[in-house]
Amino acid sequence: MLIDGRPHRSIWREPETGRVIIIDQTRLPHRFETRTLEDLESACEAIRTMRVRGAPLIGATAAYGLAMAVAVDPSDASLSSSAGRLIATRPTAVNLRWAVQRVAGCVRTLPLAERASRALLEADRICDEDAEACESIGAHGLDVLRSLADARGGEPLRLLTHCNAGWLATVDWGTALAPIYKAHAAGFPVHVWVDETRPRNQGASLTAFELREMGIPHTVIVDNAGGHLMQRGEVDAVIVGSDRTTASGDVCNKIGTYLKALAAAAHDVPFYVALPLSTIDWTIDDGVSEIPIEERGAEEVREIAGLTAAGDVATVSLFDASSPAANPAFDVTPARYVTRLITEHGSCEADREALAALRARAGPEASA
Amino acid sequence: MLIDGRPHRSIWREPETGRVIIIDQTRLPHRFETRTLEDLESACEAIRTMRVRGAPLIGATAAYGLAMAVAVDPSDASLSSSAGRLIATRPTAVNLRWAVQRVAGCVRTLPLAERASRALLEADRICDEDAEACESIGAHGLDVLRSLADARGGEPLRLLTHCNAGWLATVDWGTALAPIYKAHAAGFPVHVWVDETRPRNQGASLTAFELREMGIPHTVIVDNAGGHLMQRGEVDAVIVGSDRTTASGDVCNKIGTYLKALAAAAHDVPFYVALPLSTIDWTIDDGVSEIPIEERGAEEVREIAGLTAAGDVATVSLFDASSPAANPAFDVTPARYVTRLITEHGSCEADREALAALRARAGPEASA
Repeated sequence: MLIDGRPHRSIWREPETGRVIIIDQTRLPHRFETRTLEDLESACEAIRTMRVRGAPLIGATAAYGLAMAVAVDPSDASLSSSAGRLIATRPTAVNLRWAVQRVAGCVRTLPLAERASRALLEADRICDEDAEACESIGAHGLDVLRSLADARGGEPLRLLTHCNAGWLATVDWGTALAPIYKAHAAGFPVHVWVDETRPRNQGASLTAFELREMGIPHTVIVDNAGGHLMQRGEVDAVIVGSDRTTASGDVCNKIGTYLKALAAAAHDVPFYVALPLSTIDWTIDDGVSEIPIEERGAEEVREIAGLTAAGDVATVSLFDASSPAANPAFDVTPARYVTRLITEHGSCEADREALAALRARAGPEASA
Repeated sequence: MLIDGRPHRSIWREPETGRVIIIDQTRLPHRFETRTLEDLESACEAIRTMRVRGAPLIGATAAYGLAMAVAVDPSDASLSSSAGRLIATRPTAVNLRWAVQRVAGCVRTLPLAERASRALLEADRICDEDAEACESIGAHGLDVLRSLADARGGEPLRLLTHCNAGWLATVDWGTALAPIYKAHAAGFPVHVWVDETRPRNQGASLTAFELREMGIPHTVIVDNAGGHLMQRGEVDAVIVGSDRTTASGDVCNKIGTYLKALAAAAHDVPFYVALPLSTIDWTIDDGVSEIPIEERGAEEVREIAGLTAAGDVATVSLFDASSPAANPAFDVTPARYVTRLITEHGSCEADREALAALRARAGPEASA
């Protein structure tokens, strides 16, 4: 999508050199800086420190990381240990494991000499397929939103989103924001309430940035405000992404998503989750008991970066280090609070049967 | 309560000079600075800019502000216009109006020459009564918490609070934190989850500061985390204050309170609201339709102050000014989500009949 009017992906290979480039998302919205992924270690570091984040983009980055490791040492031992290191960088998102296993599975049966080029090709494919899948999510999401938009009689459709599930969380298009981009392109008016999404403020930093660059009307709010807005009838639907969804439709997403789902249920506001099928962990059912929730460092709660009056990026401390802080990064929204799941193969209710039917329709590649 | 081991109130008259002193709460937790209220204007400014905040403390500050105005000009016209200016500083809290009307009512029937000293005396009384009322809230709250604490079998009682309803929000003791201080003094272990409470971070800045100075175990969390913690069974009760409560028990409090009430209801976690009777607006029933919600400036969402590595207090901007922000300061939790109201005259269910009975028991001064 667009930055400064020019099309971008969140990760790409430089045509001249073949080098893999990422946008350093820890510097947004204050600075637009790119970085080259040099090797396995720099891919792990980029994922761990959240220079790249968002389940699909983490998967794409890990795929390139593994391809770089294979280029250095194509042995089975290297493949296994590199895959393990990548998967360990972040415990919650399932696309990471999915992408690493896909690349590893492709090359494991090949002669050593063919592995490096095949791994890179597979990483490229993962990126292209992700962009394509997200555009399809946008199209199916637009179908879901159309009746709500019609009910607004020409007034903007008021959507609330949490965290960043835009093109910066994927390779292109995004998940939760893809239907919004499609709606905007189709000419029907939208307005987005952007949860700032503490502690890392991906809403205020990334979603607001994306929407602004794409010319979509939006308003940033603190995470505390959504319940009040729904109570006052100012939200027509909530739409979020997912870091892992179970076979029964429980949705793990950025911490705070669950509070919005509860408020949406209390006010009969539809609660949509947009995700590629690669985000579904078909091996588990109960999100609350089976999904490991990453506990990140207290400094993410205690410190925040922003722009000083002089235009420098500075980190300030919000409270004394003698007060401890806890920082669970995700929470789980049980399927009963999810109105509909929107995938690249269509939308469905958040339950085991509907998801299984969608998976069957999607064909064998979705059953990985 | 204690700062650096020494007892403090949040507002007091200097014994030698009679001057009214406040703690500048916009500077906490990074700096402890006091300010003198010089006149009506400085009282209005202190309330509007939130150097003092919290419904009871706003009331006490306004009482002194009116007394200072009367000392300059004791006429009826001055009394009315000064009262009007004070009441207009913040629209949501009802203690402000209550305290101003109480002082004005006291002096209006007196000869001009007697008004100034009487107004000051009444402001002093409001402060002393508030401290006393809050201590009683603590005692009644302790009764409410005792059975929950017993059920924990010696493990700490895990309470979640939002915003700051501690002694800094009142004259002394606090409302929601008073039962916690009483529990700690009575020797039973507590642990407090402190919602940081964006956008002004009164939880991380004031509640964590208070609890640390009083030696009470606590952990700061982002506002997004509470639903997850309740879902995981890590919260035994939620306890918050109120800025205005209706005659039927609807509770208006800091933005985000409602989301915690919804989560508490979803997980059968008791949701307590602690408040002096002066916070009840007996003239209204329906909080959602009848309580005006203050909309504060976008800069409170966009900018945040913290301590730099060099130890300076600096304000940084979190996102670009081309993205608008909305900033509703309060929300309303309907009475059906409130397990119990805890007042200085005892606790009761959050409904019209129970509140009316409590009011009758409290006697005529609570019917103001």
